[in-house]
Amino acid sequence: MRIIMDGLGGDNAPDEMLEGARLAVKEYGVEILITGEKEKLRAVAYEKSVPLDGIEILEADGALTMDDAPTEVLRGKKNCSMAVGLRALAEGRGDAFVSAGNTGAMVVGSRSIIGCVDGLRRPALAPILPHTTGCFMLLDGGANVECRPEMLLQFGHMGAIYMEKILSIQSPRVGLANIGAEEHKGTQLAQDAYALLKNSSLRFVGNVEGRDIPFGACDVLVADGFTGNIILKLMEGMGLFMGQTIKGMFTRNMLTMGAALVLKPALEGFKKKMDYTEYGGAPLMGLKKPVIKAHGSSNAHAFQNAVRQAVAFVKEDVIAEIEGTRPQASSAG
Amino acid sequence: MRIIMDGLGGDNAPDEMLEGARLAVKEYGVEILITGEKEKLRAVAYEKSVPLDGIEILEADGALTMDDAPTEVLRGKKNCSMAVGLRALAEGRGDAFVSAGNTGAMVVGSRSIIGCVDGLRRPALAPILPHTTGCFMLLDGGANVECRPEMLLQFGHMGAIYMEKILSIQSPRVGLANIGAEEHKGTQLAQDAYALLKNSSLRFVGNVEGRDIPFGACDVLVADGFTGNIILKLMEGMGLFMGQTIKGMFTRNMLTMGAALVLKPALEGFKKKMDYTEYGGAPLMGLKKPVIKAHGSSNAHAFQNAVRQAVAFVKEDVIAEIEGTRPQASSAG
Repeated sequence: MRIIMDGLGGDNAPDEMLEGARLAVKEYGVEILITGEKEKLRAVAYEKSVPLDGIEILEADGALTMDDAPTEVLRGKKNCSMAVGLRALAEGRGDAFVSAGNTGAMVVGSRSIIGCVDGLRRPALAPILPHTTGCFMLLDGGANVECRPEMLLQFGHMGAIYMEKILSIQSPRVGLANIGAEEHKGTQLAQDAYALLKNSSLRFVGNVEGRDIPFGACDVLVADGFTGNIILKLMEGMGLFMGQTIKGMFTRNMLTMGAALVLKPALEGFKKKMDYTEYGGAPLMGLKKPVIKAHGSSNAHAFQNAVRQAVAFVKEDVIAEIEGTRPQASSAG
Repeated sequence: MRIIMDGLGGDNAPDEMLEGARLAVKEYGVEILITGEKEKLRAVAYEKSVPLDGIEILEADGALTMDDAPTEVLRGKKNCSMAVGLRALAEGRGDAFVSAGNTGAMVVGSRSIIGCVDGLRRPALAPILPHTTGCFMLLDGGANVECRPEMLLQFGHMGAIYMEKILSIQSPRVGLANIGAEEHKGTQLAQDAYALLKNSSLRFVGNVEGRDIPFGACDVLVADGFTGNIILKLMEGMGLFMGQTIKGMFTRNMLTMGAALVLKPALEGFKKKMDYTEYGGAPLMGLKKPVIKAHGSSNAHAFQNAVRQAVAFVKEDVIAEIEGTRPQASSAG
């Protein structure tokens, strides 16, 4: 199997990306095709003593930055490392694409270069987030600001397939982000999506209120991209806030620093649980080929996990499953 | 001044409510008019040794429960403690109304019995939430699921008036909950509201993403009621999650319990900061008279704070200010 990686996307590229690629070659026996400036990448690999066995470099003209407009990936920067990687995937030069670059550009670029399964205009961004006893997949995390009810049903199907195939959750519980438990709650979109989800073949557990999200109310949380992005970023923000608060408590004086030592195992267990990079990145669900958005601040370990996730995505043939649910989804709706 | 209190609303009524009323009479020199079953309330007051000086009871037929449909406050339970309280406020038998009861019923009941200022169909639920360095007001926390852009502008004005008058924040920063910093981000509603807010007399600080909400990005956060309710409840849920996680760390063994003792001052400071009842309840903004929704699990201290808040609301004549911004809001928009 061959995984294509964006050599220049993210805060820690190319250094950590190269190390992540090396770890992935070693651990999963895959080949890696990295996109970027050959000279530069080879120089960094040499400097950091990262052997390039099993790693090939595909020339690209620099990176798309976080400040670039997403559409630049198709226009002024159509030879950037992300665009070159997406085209390589479209041409079959690899089985999946991983990038830690500009999320908006990945949505725009993959939609145009890879294409969506029938019935979706854009892929859904599907981050995997921690809850008290495990994790859940959120779709859509922000790619589709305006959604139709049928799209939310499809988000449910795609998320359920991922959680079952990749994270081995049998019969995943699908919930709808809403502002009350009752069927008639929420916007017209939420009410219509409720009806579709209820009558589908999914294990629909009904509406999930904000308060219940962190407590594992469902394995797949369905929302329009606006609501989903608010949820995604607020959970990230509250997690950061929480981390800072705990840190602040411990660094007050010698006594509290001693207390921190005592609590170290618990703190590290908690940190690991909250570390979403353990699950890899956020797949862009609904594309005709596997594309994984790694977190912008991915380190080598996070890049490695994103490759592991891409490998599983390919092996389990998630996309064929998604395409297979299309008629079912339509007839059920 | 006379504050009307719902004697039977909330998880801890009437016991804690009565004690809160007593504390309010003592601390703020107000009179309290409590609605509920006279015999029952007097018996509880006697049993708990709560003197009823300065407290009058207005007969009502029991409570509206959390399971009752909100519209019951106007129909089958139109003589419940909440409905009687709202009518007493409408009739001028008191200056403000405080209840810890069913939020939906308070919105429906106050809209019908008290009425909204021109331009609003329903009041906005306006909870005050903690951030790293203080607090902010969120409007709308869930009363208006579908909003027009003009409503979001008015939420901004109402919130700014509250934060300036009641919490003494000079020139409050008003932000719009959105999924990106740029003007063109988000739904059509968000884009249109952005334009209105930008051209208003408010100190508009632009879009606020979920990640920045806990870090004090603004003093007033404007959102439609669907988005606002997701934010409100997710913050509550993440706060609970955080509390449980910290508690779990400390109760592992004797050593960690020792560490908890060392960290006690920091923990209590944090707990106090996160305790939204310090700011009182959530005003229903946009009504013709002051109505405060106290948290459902309010204890005596929270009820006392809600009365303090109601007193400030009346003294500062927040509603006249809100009515005064109407033409300004229209011309600015």
